[in-house]
Amino acid sequence: MQVSSSLASAIDGELFWNDVKAQAQIGALFPRGIRRLALDDQDNRARLWLMEQGETLGCSAHYDALGNVFLRREGRDPSLPPLLIGSHLDSQPSAGAYDGTLGVVAGLAVIRALAERQIEHARPVEVVSWTNEEGARFAPGASGSSWFAGRRDAETILAMQDDDGTTFKTALADCVSLLKAHGAHFRPTPVVPHAFLELHIEQGPVLEDQGAPVCVVTGIQGVHWYEIEVTGQANHAGTTPETSRRDAFMGALALVDALKKAVVAHDDQTRFTIGRFALSPNSVNTIPQQARFTIDLRHPDPVVLEALDTAFRELAKREWSGCTARLEVTSRVEPVAFDEHLVAVLDEAVKTYWPQAPRLVSGAFHDAIHLAHLCPTAMLFTPCRAGVSHHPDEHIERADAEVAVRTLAHAVEQLLQIRNS
Amino acid sequence: MQVSSSLASAIDGELFWNDVKAQAQIGALFPRGIRRLALDDQDNRARLWLMEQGETLGCSAHYDALGNVFLRREGRDPSLPPLLIGSHLDSQPSAGAYDGTLGVVAGLAVIRALAERQIEHARPVEVVSWTNEEGARFAPGASGSSWFAGRRDAETILAMQDDDGTTFKTALADCVSLLKAHGAHFRPTPVVPHAFLELHIEQGPVLEDQGAPVCVVTGIQGVHWYEIEVTGQANHAGTTPETSRRDAFMGALALVDALKKAVVAHDDQTRFTIGRFALSPNSVNTIPQQARFTIDLRHPDPVVLEALDTAFRELAKREWSGCTARLEVTSRVEPVAFDEHLVAVLDEAVKTYWPQAPRLVSGAFHDAIHLAHLCPTAMLFTPCRAGVSHHPDEHIERADAEVAVRTLAHAVEQLLQIRNS
Repeated sequence: MQVSSSLASAIDGELFWNDVKAQAQIGALFPRGIRRLALDDQDNRARLWLMEQGETLGCSAHYDALGNVFLRREGRDPSLPPLLIGSHLDSQPSAGAYDGTLGVVAGLAVIRALAERQIEHARPVEVVSWTNEEGARFAPGASGSSWFAGRRDAETILAMQDDDGTTFKTALADCVSLLKAHGAHFRPTPVVPHAFLELHIEQGPVLEDQGAPVCVVTGIQGVHWYEIEVTGQANHAGTTPETSRRDAFMGALALVDALKKAVVAHDDQTRFTIGRFALSPNSVNTIPQQARFTIDLRHPDPVVLEALDTAFRELAKREWSGCTARLEVTSRVEPVAFDEHLVAVLDEAVKTYWPQAPRLVSGAFHDAIHLAHLCPTAMLFTPCRAGVSHHPDEHIERADAEVAVRTLAHAVEQLLQIRNS
Repeated sequence: MQVSSSLASAIDGELFWNDVKAQAQIGALFPRGIRRLALDDQDNRARLWLMEQGETLGCSAHYDALGNVFLRREGRDPSLPPLLIGSHLDSQPSAGAYDGTLGVVAGLAVIRALAERQIEHARPVEVVSWTNEEGARFAPGASGSSWFAGRRDAETILAMQDDDGTTFKTALADCVSLLKAHGAHFRPTPVVPHAFLELHIEQGPVLEDQGAPVCVVTGIQGVHWYEIEVTGQANHAGTTPETSRRDAFMGALALVDALKKAVVAHDDQTRFTIGRFALSPNSVNTIPQQARFTIDLRHPDPVVLEALDTAFRELAKREWSGCTARLEVTSRVEPVAFDEHLVAVLDEAVKTYWPQAPRLVSGAFHDAIHLAHLCPTAMLFTPCRAGVSHHPDEHIERADAEVAVRTLAHAVEQLLQIRNS
């Protein structure tokens, strides 16, 4: 492997992979996978582990009002906004060991390389673990990063309850006691970072298909969620002639067909998924009275999303096989395009290791979607086997992950202007 | 109204409608509709009411091993097989007052006309109420008629249980005690009737649409029930490009489209209904792994049903949007064509009252589907409002029902050869 960056070559692949494996032990499931729900005992242990590693590397540990944990490697000028690197340590209920964790451990590997080589830098560098990215225990997720970026207010987040009725606030209090007891310092207000970098597994099949160990992520797709209700008339399946039918299933089919045609009219970057579908009364010999289904629509370009939104609304106004339709928007997240300069820096780093690597737009959400509203933000992806995530079978190759971490280090070196320092 | 039959003109429309209304009081629901589950207290009361009416008209009452009740108006030659007229008195849980009941009460009206005019006939005439046609308490239904016609064995029927664990046998014992106590005689073996006539509401919209008060039913459609499973691959809705998808919903859609095309290739008598449909894992942002749906397929011609069966099986073998399919037959009832001579007799009777009446094939099942295997059988339909049945809103017009009963009487007169007696 060609190594053109001194910080990249200072990455200790063995220790980095040991860290990944050590994290995989916290909340481990048998025979594989992990379970670390936000602010539960395992999630808290994972944070303490992170703090311990930071201490041995000479970092100070900090936490904020949402329990986000920061390891700070001081710069020559502590007043400069820090370069922030990280992701999250919480997981889905039955998850793999890499989603989130990889990005935090990668930040740690960069800090370790800086410490090992005793590299000085003007700007502080911080590794962050954001609280409750997954939203599996407290929904919605990305609590820590969205609050940090000023996108959601703390009150609403603290009031969320898990299935047992425990509030986020109560769970957070336990976590904070532990962090304090282990010497972490409280930071009352978020500091606007110089930039935020997040390395994450792709959670899709593209990189594996192309054999690329790493790539730049240029943004995150916007998502519209719709709920559509098609209403016809229930009737006897045997006695009702075709011409007298107002079959809600057939109406839904015709509408879906038209929706698909509207989607195909745009480029192939659109993601259109009907994940939930139900009929009522749902009886073998009764013509359906009603069909209800959801649409998950994603695109990196807000203009395309808006055009499709208009098209969908128009289609829902028409009659479909004698049935009426009603469309409701249940969620709407605008796409994010990452900072051009930062993407260019990552691009250059990626090209050092894999010139033919594609540029991707993330189809999944990440903490970076919120940070992008606060400071220059960009991401790196590394492949996961068959695109599988949120499952114990989630798997990455050590060789790929190492290239990704070195790519990250290469970019950090540029951003810290270490050669000039 | 032109009345060309003396028996038809002897029908007392007022008393007939009173009977319909009297039956509607037994198991009445507020504000309308009835609930008479097979062999429950209300169903038993309805049978006793029928026996009482028969007694006042000089009939003897009989019951058999399945609790079917027969009112017998004796003929000059008691050894001749009886002409059988009837339907059922049990109902769906929340039903209208006409489904089944109309056919029994119509038989009673014919017997009353014979009695009033003191008309003698060589052949005995019997009015029957079949046990558990609906199958709402004990499934499947048509218990009394299927056993009577030798199509199902008594042991299996008697062993059926309702939701409370009560067996058909136990419920029947209670009913039989009541029937016996009120003087009904036990008939150990079914007598093969001379013919069976059943008047029923259409449960479809055709007669109402055409303004016809009555029509001949030439047969009952056959029904195939299928369950189809389409299997793809669950994946993330945001990260999986179109080309990497094996979306079970899209696969199911493509298959349904092909199934519909196969159906349309035949005549417009085919009834094709997808009444149940489910996705798994049924999550908004997950590409469906599996789609399962049912097909209710009906046609009066066994050759067409067979051809469609073959076509469906062939289609299920193909790949649909990268997904595999599996087809299972869950039920299969062959079509029945009613006796030609009997249909001709009913045809002539119908033409007397409504020359332009259509001939229909029943899309719903009736006790007649089983009797048709035992003796010459045919049916008459009378319209119900908007085709609604199995619902308290089920409604018929008294004028229509009267025409239908007179039509029935007209046919009975022909069959009994009363003019020659």
